[in-house]
Amino acid sequence: MESERDDTPGGAIPTELCEALQNSHLWALLITPNFLQDEWCMYMMHQALAEAPMSARIIPLRQNLSHTQYPQELKFYYYIDLSFNSDRGYSRISRTVLKYLEDLAKSEKTRACNMDSSGKGLTPTLLGEARTYYICTTEDLIVGNERGKRITSCTV
Amino acid sequence: MESERDDTPGGAIPTELCEALQNSHLWALLITPNFLQDEWCMYMMHQALAEAPMSARIIPLRQNLSHTQYPQELKFYYYIDLSFNSDRGYSRISRTVLKYLEDLAKSEKTRACNMDSSGKGLTPTLLGEARTYYICTTEDLIVGNERGKRITSCTV
Repeated sequence: MESERDDTPGGAIPTELCEALQNSHLWALLITPNFLQDEWCMYMMHQALAEAPMSARIIPLRQNLSHTQYPQELKFYYYIDLSFNSDRGYSRISRTVLKYLEDLAKSEKTRACNMDSSGKGLTPTLLGEARTYYICTTEDLIVGNERGKRITSCTV
Repeated sequence: MESERDDTPGGAIPTELCEALQNSHLWALLITPNFLQDEWCMYMMHQALAEAPMSARIIPLRQNLSHTQYPQELKFYYYIDLSFNSDRGYSRISRTVLKYLEDLAKSEKTRACNMDSSGKGLTPTLLGEARTYYICTTEDLIVGNERGKRITSCTV
C-alpha cells in the first residue's frame, strides 16, 4: 500500500494511515486485483467506510476488475471505471473533487454567516489544496503515479 | 445500528452487514427519526437497494415520521406504518413474510421439477426459519425488541 502523503518514519502504520485519512477531504480508492490482495488497502477501505459511510467522501476507482471481484461493501457507491478511457475517468475524478469542495465551501460559508459577521467560522484549508487521499498498492502507484499527483493537486 | 443476528466480533462491520443482508430472504427497515440519523442504517438501506431494488424483499416500516422526512429512495414501495395501530402493523409484516416465502417455495418447487425428478433443486432453507433481517437503531430495538423477535421467528 502506498500513498501520496508523507508518513512519519517510526510512527505506527495504522495510526499514520488513520490520521492521513482523517486529515483528507476525500478518499480515492484505486481498486484493482492488487488492491484486493493487499491487506493495508483493504484495511483503509474499511477505515474510510467506518469514518463516514454516507458522506460522499469515498470515490471508488475501478480498474481491471470483473463484476464479481468488486467489493460488496462498495456496491451502492457510484464508481469511476478507469479500465477503458482512463483520461475521461481522471477528468471525472477532478470534477468530483471540485464539486465536493465547492459544496463544502458553500456550507461552511453559510455556517459562518449564521455564527457571526466576523467570518471566524470559515475553514482556511478549504481555500488551499483539496486534500484527496489516494489509496492504492505500490504496484498500481507506479503505473498511475502521474495521475495520482493530478488528483491530489486539484485546488479551489 | 443493531440487528437480530449474531455478528462476528473482530469482523469488519461493513462486511458483516453485507453478509447478513445477503443471507436473508427479506429486509425489514424500521425507519424512524433515529434511523435517518444513523449512518449504518442508511448504509444498509442503500445496500439493500443495490442488492435487489425490485425483488419485493425490502419491507419499509415507518414510525413517527412526517411525510417530508420519509426517504425519497423508498418512495414507491408499499410501507407499513407502525405509528398508530402497531399490532395491526406487525400482523401485516408476518403476512408479508409468509406470502413472500410461499411464493418463493412455489417457484423453487417448479424450478426443481423442471430440472429433474430427484428434487435436487429444492432449497432446504426455505423449509426452515424465514430469514428476515431487521434493520434499526439500538434505541429503536430496545423499544421494539419483542416485536423484532416476532418478525424474525416467522416460519413456513
